[in-house]
Amino acid sequence: MNPSQVEAYLHEHIPLSAAMGITVVESSPERTVLEAPLGPNLNHRATAFGGSISTLAILTGWVHVHFRLRSEGHAVHTVIHRSTVDYTAPITSTFRATCERVSDAPWARLCRGLDRHNKGRVHVDVQIESGTAHVSHFRGAYVALQEADG
Amino acid sequence: MNPSQVEAYLHEHIPLSAAMGITVVESSPERTVLEAPLGPNLNHRATAFGGSISTLAILTGWVHVHFRLRSEGHAVHTVIHRSTVDYTAPITSTFRATCERVSDAPWARLCRGLDRHNKGRVHVDVQIESGTAHVSHFRGAYVALQEADG
Repeated sequence: MNPSQVEAYLHEHIPLSAAMGITVVESSPERTVLEAPLGPNLNHRATAFGGSISTLAILTGWVHVHFRLRSEGHAVHTVIHRSTVDYTAPITSTFRATCERVSDAPWARLCRGLDRHNKGRVHVDVQIESGTAHVSHFRGAYVALQEADG
Repeated sequence: MNPSQVEAYLHEHIPLSAAMGITVVESSPERTVLEAPLGPNLNHRATAFGGSISTLAILTGWVHVHFRLRSEGHAVHTVIHRSTVDYTAPITSTFRATCERVSDAPWARLCRGLDRHNKGRVHVDVQIESGTAHVSHFRGAYVALQEADG
């Protein structure tokens, strides 16, 4: 799926992604980048709401893991298992979350888990930036499960 | 502020809380309880989206800390600094986040920080349940800062 197809998928199946105005800037096994405008994601201080930052990052990691597995032929569903976010600076404009390609060893472990036990687990890091400033860091653990009919 | 006033405040100042259909069930220094319906918070698996669970918990902890400080006479603003969520079971109906009263020692530390340095920090735990099942756990660190004109 190309970025606009991924975006349409998210908006259709995860209504909060549409309410937040999330766009998919890049989606490939190399890198996934999602973006959100400030307007629908404001808090009481006129900066980005922590819940929106956390949500954008969770989705970015999910898109990266899920669609890379699918592109490699794994018929899986993927769920978030644990998330941690550090909010390091206030955000006053559009913000962007980037998940770089998971490195080979943990990716191979995830795939081995799927092949042997129909279940694998992987950690991903997502950096959140606004303009040129680094504003938050996310680390998530995702679990992929072989589809029953996969 | 009573629960319906807190709810109106959230919906006005944090649009995502309105998009999620969040209601404030209880808001007092003893306990804060926020609830969200499944509809606007669905994911691609027809269960509650992790971003929504995380967001409901962040708001619940924030309401608890911020409005208890305000009710005790501290003119502060309060921000999330770190959040961790464990997603332990899928959610298939309305879900509810509960933050119990922070115990005396950490609360006194928070207030001492505000009095001495215009800044304090506190950790809170939030339990997320759906029906009678425990489905997620959240731990958040919040920072309260004395208002410049407070």
